[in-house]
Amino acid sequence: MKRNILVGQSGGPTAVINSSLYGVWKEGKAHPEAIGTIYGMVNGISGFLEEHILDLTALPEEQARLWRTTPAAYLGSCRYKLPENLDDAVYPLIFEKLQKYQIGYVLYIGGNDSMDTVSKLSRYGNKIGSDIRFLGVPKTIDNDLVLTDHTPGFGSAAKYVAAMVRQMVMDSEVYSTQSVTIIEIMGRAAGWLTAASVLARRFEGDNPVLIYLPETAFDIEAMLSRLQALLLVKKNIIICVSEGIHDAEGRLICEYEKEIGADVFGHKNLTGCGKVLENIIKDRLGIKVRSVELNITQRCSATMASLVDVDEADLCGQEGVRLALKGKSGLMVSMRRSSADPYTITYEGVDVNQVCNQEKLVPAAWITKEGTDLDKAFIEYVYPLIQGESMPPMREGLPVFIHRS
Amino acid sequence: MKRNILVGQSGGPTAVINSSLYGVWKEGKAHPEAIGTIYGMVNGISGFLEEHILDLTALPEEQARLWRTTPAAYLGSCRYKLPENLDDAVYPLIFEKLQKYQIGYVLYIGGNDSMDTVSKLSRYGNKIGSDIRFLGVPKTIDNDLVLTDHTPGFGSAAKYVAAMVRQMVMDSEVYSTQSVTIIEIMGRAAGWLTAASVLARRFEGDNPVLIYLPETAFDIEAMLSRLQALLLVKKNIIICVSEGIHDAEGRLICEYEKEIGADVFGHKNLTGCGKVLENIIKDRLGIKVRSVELNITQRCSATMASLVDVDEADLCGQEGVRLALKGKSGLMVSMRRSSADPYTITYEGVDVNQVCNQEKLVPAAWITKEGTDLDKAFIEYVYPLIQGESMPPMREGLPVFIHRS
Repeated sequence: MKRNILVGQSGGPTAVINSSLYGVWKEGKAHPEAIGTIYGMVNGISGFLEEHILDLTALPEEQARLWRTTPAAYLGSCRYKLPENLDDAVYPLIFEKLQKYQIGYVLYIGGNDSMDTVSKLSRYGNKIGSDIRFLGVPKTIDNDLVLTDHTPGFGSAAKYVAAMVRQMVMDSEVYSTQSVTIIEIMGRAAGWLTAASVLARRFEGDNPVLIYLPETAFDIEAMLSRLQALLLVKKNIIICVSEGIHDAEGRLICEYEKEIGADVFGHKNLTGCGKVLENIIKDRLGIKVRSVELNITQRCSATMASLVDVDEADLCGQEGVRLALKGKSGLMVSMRRSSADPYTITYEGVDVNQVCNQEKLVPAAWITKEGTDLDKAFIEYVYPLIQGESMPPMREGLPVFIHRS
Repeated sequence: MKRNILVGQSGGPTAVINSSLYGVWKEGKAHPEAIGTIYGMVNGISGFLEEHILDLTALPEEQARLWRTTPAAYLGSCRYKLPENLDDAVYPLIFEKLQKYQIGYVLYIGGNDSMDTVSKLSRYGNKIGSDIRFLGVPKTIDNDLVLTDHTPGFGSAAKYVAAMVRQMVMDSEVYSTQSVTIIEIMGRAAGWLTAASVLARRFEGDNPVLIYLPETAFDIEAMLSRLQALLLVKKNIIICVSEGIHDAEGRLICEYEKEIGADVFGHKNLTGCGKVLENIIKDRLGIKVRSVELNITQRCSATMASLVDVDEADLCGQEGVRLALKGKSGLMVSMRRSSADPYTITYEGVDVNQVCNQEKLVPAAWITKEGTDLDKAFIEYVYPLIQGESMPPMREGLPVFIHRS
């Protein structure tokens, strides 16, 4: 008997989350003997609870293929967390709806929280003896999922960060006056994306000369000393910082300004850590400082995506369907680097319960002693992930994307 | 007798200012009978005063060609303003140095202030009967130079803005909760670049639904009313604003926050107008609001440049040399749209004295009555300028640029 696929997207968008959707769709269509309809849940599991679903089966290939180059989440996303208690009434409700649509395979594309959803649904399924298969497909620009070499979405964000930092470095060099530019990059607990700014360097000693990750305690006085020494030999300094940098007491740098009274609105994080550092450096060193937040462009730039990343996201989606058809459940698709040279990824399933609610940080061994630079081992790790160019089709000078109408 | 070329760059960088440098160099090399050496001044006229110059003549073509796809100012820039008084001692000093290097032709690539330099040097030259030719080559992402259809640099910045706003719109649509996203775009007095965000729309009624330029007085209460009405029919709202928007009294919106006491540092423009509006909308409407500053990526993104713009910048540089060789001086190269369909540009010289220290604003007739949208006439104007893709060569996953070593 044919069973249907239900695929969803959850958590923050990336440039390649739709490429994984394409992989699921494509592989699902390749098994007409086993799979009937391919449904997409709109706005993840919370949308599915309202039976907000789409039948994607008959989408023409040339339309579906646009998913590979369309950023953000085509199906919409959610930040809904299922209750810890598997006796909660929401579980039978979900399974009732899964039965109604004759779902045999649920593929959920997302990060930590989404893997938590896969974990809970598969555990509840086991509990009631359901044969519905639940598979997680990894996704996050933060690259903080454990048990996988890296996550789809990270490579494209890393490529964007490196390319834009390189261009901002050049922009900073045009005047003969001294300047400091602080570039604030996404990453609260894990500094992977900020670390990727090291790739922007064109030559030994090039900018960014200081890179600060949340994996290391940030010391303002130490930074000011380093900066003063560097300004003696270098005219324009670029500092890349993760949004989540904090001091040795764990206090976020972005909250320093609040404590000295800047926030009259009572808003948290009125400014980011880049702006706080800009003000401190200006006050203390009296030189020209500016700060730039790369902001959401980091996670949605399909116009500077890594082809390796787009392909891997697609293959992760495909692998999810293959694992489901083999009868596996409660697994997340994982990428194992089976060879470093030539770079080779082997796709396999890992226990989703061991993935969810964990965070993989940049290893201490990959951060230099002063906590301001990355080791060669990190560069060797990240280098293959940004290779190759993926561009959306262009029409009349602008990228063309697919969207739900 | 052969004479030498001296070429310089001045003002803020753009994605294509080096393409104009290539045009000057290429056309200079094409006239070996008239032109000897091609010198570049490092950091504009202020660097030349210190005889900080480079001999560019022997640069290999494959190296020079990288200028077409290298952002920021290869030669470095300056913000030096020559004295109004032509009797100032700096003028004979400059001409002495021009003579020392047997300069016959000075090409200065820049915006308003740079044209002021060309104007003063050519007027001083006339006064002393010098036969050195001074030509301006236009450049600015702000598109605010008069007597030219548009300026090189604007098309690429407009293409980048439109492409990134389109992708940020998609990013804003992934959640089912209501949200407002404010995108702050460069432009203090002239809103050309913010206006270009209108191109991001994929269909009638698409975001950005509100676009505010400094050409129109900004009224916070009117915006809040519009927003409330829009939120009844649209889930996610994108508002694009120029950094220089101001109220009817001329007060900058970015300075509102200061007046209510947020700036404890005494820094001007601690936050941009986007952040100010974010706070006001949050307070008044109580919904999810975020603001994003596109910042310097707008002016240095050679990885999303318009091929039309790159070619035109190159041709403007070439035309500057041709005008100089014809004996013209005190002119700026201008682009005249000699036909709208097919889009055709005719290159000619206009009196630089009528260009400098003027600002071309978006015509009132191109802004809709409510001051929140652009008319079809603007779209027809801007559309041809963003056509075609120009990409730097990519090596190992990242763009390759040329830089002074």
